[in-house]
Amino acid sequence: MVICMKDDVVTFARITPVSTPHLAGEWTFDALPLQLGGSFGPVTLAYETWGTLNSSKDNAILLTHALTGNAHAYDTEHPEDPRAAWWNPLIGPGKPFDTERYFIICSNVLGGCYGSSGPTSLDPATGRTYGLNFPLVTIRDMVNAQRKLVEYLGVRELAMVAGGSVGGQQALEWAVTYPELVRKVAVVAATSALTAQAVAFNEVGRQAIMADPRWHRGNYRPDQGPEAGLAIARMLAMITYQSEEGMEERFARRPAQRPDSAPSGYAAFGGSFDVESYLYHQGKALVRRFDANSYLYLSRAMDLYDVSAGYPSLEAALRRIQSQALFIGIRSDFLFPAARVRLLAEQVRQAGAHATYIELDSPDGHDAFLKEWEQMTEAFYSILD
Amino acid sequence: MVICMKDDVVTFARITPVSTPHLAGEWTFDALPLQLGGSFGPVTLAYETWGTLNSSKDNAILLTHALTGNAHAYDTEHPEDPRAAWWNPLIGPGKPFDTERYFIICSNVLGGCYGSSGPTSLDPATGRTYGLNFPLVTIRDMVNAQRKLVEYLGVRELAMVAGGSVGGQQALEWAVTYPELVRKVAVVAATSALTAQAVAFNEVGRQAIMADPRWHRGNYRPDQGPEAGLAIARMLAMITYQSEEGMEERFARRPAQRPDSAPSGYAAFGGSFDVESYLYHQGKALVRRFDANSYLYLSRAMDLYDVSAGYPSLEAALRRIQSQALFIGIRSDFLFPAARVRLLAEQVRQAGAHATYIELDSPDGHDAFLKEWEQMTEAFYSILD
Repeated sequence: MVICMKDDVVTFARITPVSTPHLAGEWTFDALPLQLGGSFGPVTLAYETWGTLNSSKDNAILLTHALTGNAHAYDTEHPEDPRAAWWNPLIGPGKPFDTERYFIICSNVLGGCYGSSGPTSLDPATGRTYGLNFPLVTIRDMVNAQRKLVEYLGVRELAMVAGGSVGGQQALEWAVTYPELVRKVAVVAATSALTAQAVAFNEVGRQAIMADPRWHRGNYRPDQGPEAGLAIARMLAMITYQSEEGMEERFARRPAQRPDSAPSGYAAFGGSFDVESYLYHQGKALVRRFDANSYLYLSRAMDLYDVSAGYPSLEAALRRIQSQALFIGIRSDFLFPAARVRLLAEQVRQAGAHATYIELDSPDGHDAFLKEWEQMTEAFYSILD
Repeated sequence: MVICMKDDVVTFARITPVSTPHLAGEWTFDALPLQLGGSFGPVTLAYETWGTLNSSKDNAILLTHALTGNAHAYDTEHPEDPRAAWWNPLIGPGKPFDTERYFIICSNVLGGCYGSSGPTSLDPATGRTYGLNFPLVTIRDMVNAQRKLVEYLGVRELAMVAGGSVGGQQALEWAVTYPELVRKVAVVAATSALTAQAVAFNEVGRQAIMADPRWHRGNYRPDQGPEAGLAIARMLAMITYQSEEGMEERFARRPAQRPDSAPSGYAAFGGSFDVESYLYHQGKALVRRFDANSYLYLSRAMDLYDVSAGYPSLEAALRRIQSQALFIGIRSDFLFPAARVRLLAEQVRQAGAHATYIELDSPDGHDAFLKEWEQMTEAFYSILD
């Protein structure tokens, strides 16, 4: 409703919200050469877009998701619910990723289980799901697949690529692999390569999955997978996404009120602590929404990522970056420690790019990039015009 | 061999080492009332002693071991080999725990699997191993059992109780429960109660054990136990005993040269990192020497420990301490963070006891109390005369 009044009075305009253009679809292309050798195809990417590509085709922002994420970064139906989509509070009219200015793109990663080609996809050669016949894919492969999608969508240049965690690895990889296509990049809670400790945590989770007799070397029916193993892997991962400080604030040593059932079927002796019941719940929640093989593939891509792979040195890789770069670390993150994110920002600056570093002051650990909306908003506005 | 020369020349004396008196045995008593209710018996404790109890019966030092430890704190046969016994470099003639001055005692904890009563012991009522019929024992129960052993050995007063990690919990519990018996206490890398994060890590390990189909609700044959589950639990525990910094120094992202076999039988995709192979090895090594049910019981005792249990407040519990107390934290420990050990020392001081705090400057994480021999030696000498 627009109310126009006479010249001599103040004009009050109440504009009927124009609904954000939103597209959810999938796109398939023939083949993708893989970083570790060979080629894979056909490749399907599930994706969503919000907003409109401008005539110069340079207002697109690509958002890249984390380990168990999907293309649903924004929910136009429930824009105010932070749980409705993974970066919901950062996207939309008047938000950093402003759908009235930008054409926002997000796709499920190659290897994922939310519509893109992955271990749960049907292999057209056999008519059966790939399972472990799916190739070992890397962050670079994910980015190369995204590049094809972005081209398909008509984008000439990306105004920005932004993501956190495994999404931050993808954002960094974009800036290094396709410097001429990426005007700005935001790498959140990610580094040039995982620490030994982070690899070790991931491997404990994978061993829990593969030790589950229902894993059957990856050859399980969707409803008969290694549920206990995947739940245990998720329990561990959830600890690494938080912090000692944050967990102490939230759980301390409180007993569970109504203990959730444990992945193994057996709760700890002597009653459950609240933190245990919480982790059981988180484990089960992932089992309902995620595939165990996909978890193995994507967590391994996370481990194997090293931005310097294929270059003479880390510096040589980082010298390629032309984007204006923002690095966001989290004070309490121990999976991707803030000091290492800051170091990467310094290395990028020394390599000649424009790089800034912002640290989120949060007790929420790695997960803060999915929680600290005010600080994240402020951080993104520091680089977006 | 003693060479005595004439008066007019320098006398060179090479003294034949007097072998340290050493006893390894076990002792059984009828029954122990348990903290969580009921009574358990008969109770056997496996123990070792070194040195001689003096006539006033007050030169005994009790050493309390960590989660998967045993009574073998010192090895008289291989006193120079740090791997031959868990506190070997700290014990012996001319060491802080001087066997020529002190009567050193160490026993395997109640619930353990190195000779003391635990889930692997035979239940005299059934003639079968206890398994999960073993009662839920606590740190306080362990200490009460040790007290009976100490009395049996004729000790009137302990010159010191010292231990690290779960051993540190026992040392603290001794000082609070039996203040009149403990002249000095050294609590190393332990706190008044575990953090939510530490409980959570423990529970992930336990779930891995109990999810292993070979666990059979604790009813397995010794050679057919949940080996994969226990190995996975150990892999995770080993990460928590180290630090990001220490693991980065030691492993970084080096590939494994000759990868060890994984607990699940399946190594990670795309080749193993050195850190992964190391953890596989550590997992298997524990499986060879430790019982899975015992691991469940002892890790749970660790979680449940709260020095204030049964007292009106933490302060009320700590006010009981009469011992001269030494607290040792480790800079890089994230399982028992240094800041929390220091806080405990302050709380003990505020409660009226004489307490000092020393922090080991080590990148080795929690494990530093089994590695940093020079700093540990210096720390113990600060409280031992």
